[in-house]
Amino acid sequence: MRLHRTSIDPTLWRRRFEVPLIIGAVLYLVAYSIQVTSHPGPAASRFLEGIVWGVWCLFLVDYLVSLLSAPSRGRWFIRHLHELVILLLPMLRPLRLLRLIPLLRVLNRSGGDALRGHIVLYVISAMTVLGYAGALAVLDVEQDAPGATIVTLPDALWWALTTVTSVGYGDYYPVTGAGRLVAAGLMIGGIGVLSAVTAAFASWLVENVGTARAEAEATASDTRMQDQLTSVSLQIDTLTRQLAHGSHPRHDSED
Amino acid sequence: MRLHRTSIDPTLWRRRFEVPLIIGAVLYLVAYSIQVTSHPGPAASRFLEGIVWGVWCLFLVDYLVSLLSAPSRGRWFIRHLHELVILLLPMLRPLRLLRLIPLLRVLNRSGGDALRGHIVLYVISAMTVLGYAGALAVLDVEQDAPGATIVTLPDALWWALTTVTSVGYGDYYPVTGAGRLVAAGLMIGGIGVLSAVTAAFASWLVENVGTARAEAEATASDTRMQDQLTSVSLQIDTLTRQLAHGSHPRHDSED
Amino acid sequence: MRLHRTSIDPTLWRRRFEVPLIIGAVLYLVAYSIQVTSHPGPAASRFLEGIVWGVWCLFLVDYLVSLLSAPSRGRWFIRHLHELVILLLPMLRPLRLLRLIPLLRVLNRSGGDALRGHIVLYVISAMTVLGYAGALAVLDVEQDAPGATIVTLPDALWWALTTVTSVGYGDYYPVTGAGRLVAAGLMIGGIGVLSAVTAAFASWLVENVGTARAEAEATASDTRMQDQLTSVSLQIDTLTRQLAHGSHPRHDSED
Amino acid sequence: MRLHRTSIDPTLWRRRFEVPLIIGAVLYLVAYSIQVTSHPGPAASRFLEGIVWGVWCLFLVDYLVSLLSAPSRGRWFIRHLHELVILLLPMLRPLRLLRLIPLLRVLNRSGGDALRGHIVLYVISAMTVLGYAGALAVLDVEQDAPGATIVTLPDALWWALTTVTSVGYGDYYPVTGAGRLVAAGLMIGGIGVLSAVTAAFASWLVENVGTARAEAEATASDTRMQDQLTSVSLQIDTLTRQLAHGSHPRHDSED
Repeated sequence: MRLHRTSIDPTLWRRRFEVPLIIGAVLYLVAYSIQVTSHPGPAASRFLEGIVWGVWCLFLVDYLVSLLSAPSRGRWFIRHLHELVILLLPMLRPLRLLRLIPLLRVLNRSGGDALRGHIVLYVISAMTVLGYAGALAVLDVEQDAPGATIVTLPDALWWALTTVTSVGYGDYYPVTGAGRLVAAGLMIGGIGVLSAVTAAFASWLVENVGTARAEAEATASDTRMQDQLTSVSLQIDTLTRQLAHGSHPRHDSED
Repeated sequence: MRLHRTSIDPTLWRRRFEVPLIIGAVLYLVAYSIQVTSHPGPAASRFLEGIVWGVWCLFLVDYLVSLLSAPSRGRWFIRHLHELVILLLPMLRPLRLLRLIPLLRVLNRSGGDALRGHIVLYVISAMTVLGYAGALAVLDVEQDAPGATIVTLPDALWWALTTVTSVGYGDYYPVTGAGRLVAAGLMIGGIGVLSAVTAAFASWLVENVGTARAEAEATASDTRMQDQLTSVSLQIDTLTRQLAHGSHPRHDSED
Repeated sequence: MRLHRTSIDPTLWRRRFEVPLIIGAVLYLVAYSIQVTSHPGPAASRFLEGIVWGVWCLFLVDYLVSLLSAPSRGRWFIRHLHELVILLLPMLRPLRLLRLIPLLRVLNRSGGDALRGHIVLYVISAMTVLGYAGALAVLDVEQDAPGATIVTLPDALWWALTTVTSVGYGDYYPVTGAGRLVAAGLMIGGIGVLSAVTAAFASWLVENVGTARAEAEATASDTRMQDQLTSVSLQIDTLTRQLAHGSHPRHDSED
Repeated sequence: MRLHRTSIDPTLWRRRFEVPLIIGAVLYLVAYSIQVTSHPGPAASRFLEGIVWGVWCLFLVDYLVSLLSAPSRGRWFIRHLHELVILLLPMLRPLRLLRLIPLLRVLNRSGGDALRGHIVLYVISAMTVLGYAGALAVLDVEQDAPGATIVTLPDALWWALTTVTSVGYGDYYPVTGAGRLVAAGLMIGGIGVLSAVTAAFASWLVENVGTARAEAEATASDTRMQDQLTSVSLQIDTLTRQLAHGSHPRHDSED
């Protein structure tokens, strides 16, 4: 089907580029963590910024290759518009909170199949990464704000946990607008995790408990019908044999 | 069926009146937002009040046309009694908090089909509007109350978010009876959102994962039965051919 | 089946005793509300206590009649052991918090059928009554406790709402052991409400969305099989007609 | 299949060792409760520590016997690796919080079947034990921490309840890293309980409400097909009888 458009096979590319992207995402996260938590000097800062931009270029290359190797480039562009937004938004300085979103692309890749286990695994791993990234981002914007309660990384992680699980003790909470936007993302993500786990559990139960009885009934009904078909087949066999051994044996004996 | 009752076609009316109602609802929300947040002077206040009442008249006209063009007016009146309540309640001064409820009618219209995606979209968009409206309403009644914590629009929006997602940090909470009633609505709405998202996810999983195995089994059983039917059909074919080529060929050769 | 055990028909009794039980439950709730909130004088207190015990006797009579008119008294006694516990526990003075539990029996009656709508209606109405009863009970035990935050009925109702919906702002919370036990009941009840609403929604979606495709496929498969059966039937018809119009017409013409 | 590997029958062992393990788990919990709450003297402390290690040995024996009596020891070892981790972790002094995890093994045993009721029962009983164990563990690490709010067992239990149900008033919350890790476990466990209860409810509703209509339709379709099969069978009967009573009676009469 996908003949002679480009020389790159998309599936092969995907498989080969998986590992560099994951390594890049981890580097990205580490560099951002150091930037936020330890206020590095100018040299270290420039080095960390270099890593962040290097990984960003990696994601850009992956995006461009995926676009160029798609069978229909226009349709791929429309369907993956959100990836372009994810890629371009972190370039704006005030939106540097969104820098961590490209990580979601790597996670989404590994959870490719639509199987129940993969969905739960994807949702939970996405929330773990998002929870950590959210904690970092909130710490980034809150730590110097007046009246802020979230000023250390352990507190930020603890706050992210109470937010994602919707417990919300209220011992820590964001006070800036940007921090509250991150919180909104974590809250909505928490609802997603709860939904996904519950739905996967429910679907598993429906499949394993609920349909057992229905299947047994369906099988019983099928068996009844197959028995009837077998007896019809035997009837025709009898009839055929009857015709073969003299056209009408019983009639003959009645003569 | 709906012959010569009125000259207005209800579906055509619905489609044509959609856009004015949406514009009206947005105006309504903007006018109410300004009234609540910026304490306008008497002239501006009268102008905003005019918009609110103008939009209310729009909703009244839509209600009356829908009623008059219904095939059975009595049944429509009974079934849409809640729309009358929604329309009449905001006329009472102390119930001006309910002014924003008519907006739900517009949202419900666009989510007409009973499809899973539409339900989730309706529930989420309804909660977004209700969350904003709830924040406005709570701000309206709380901002001048003694001991109130919710006194600015950003705080009210943040409070509405923590309430709908059931996180409830407790950094902001209503202290007046009216504010608590609005909070009750947001809490119940939040349970509805969580339920709808989870249920839609579960139903999608049941449809796509759970039934795959059951369908495969059903197909296998069907194939077995169709094979049996085909062999019965072939048996009859053989029998027919046997009868056609001399009544009993095998019997003849035995002679 | 249930011949000559007692002269009372259980279903008739159930239907006739429904209304007195509901009226009794409402009286019970009103009397308890007044006892808790307005610290009545000794005369009024004795009157209210009389109502509470009168309604208790009503529930006792209902229990005894149901027991005596059951087809198998022993089995009914075992299966309805929880009703005996519910009936006897409020007699102990320190457990007067449990006085309101008999109300659940009335609610359970009206929700007899196992239909989805009835379950949701039962769960929601049970939680409304339990929420009110829980607020009263918490107020009863907390209002005189040192360091208590829940000291008025509106605050108690607001606290019950934030607890059932699992929002938990933390502006009000019980500080006594008894109050915390009531809170535990409300929290567990809240989980029940959320579960019931979500499950009912999910089951409705599965029934209306999920099975539509499966049914269409099953119908298509059935139609295929019925067509095959019809063609087999026609084959036999042809064969029969062939035998009737001269045993082997085609063979004859070949001669 | 499992011929002459060891002389111990695994199922028999499981059934016989159930009661000692449960007694051991209860002793374990009691000894740990006393250690945490009442700061016992050196003699009592040594006695309690003896119980804890004695029960630990019991769990070790059970692990070893299960391993040795498994049909394929290697596969059993891989599949039950988490049990080894559960067994070895509490040996490290700083991880004594994890001492209570072996209790989960006993609970998991009794909930062997994959039935809906068993799952819910297992999840709820596991959460009850985990909630109590979590309260103990948090009290253990928090009671001497500066600025701690959880310093008595009732407060710890109340905190565990508000955490598992995700209410989170915020009147009590852990302040140490270890306490927050325990809290994370309780929060995640709470999501599990909510999911399990909702999923079990949903699957029960789907089975009892949703499939009733589908089954009725399937039965109707099956009946139609069986009727068709019966009429085909009757056609062949008629044909056979026709052949038996003179080859072509109607043809004869036409002569």
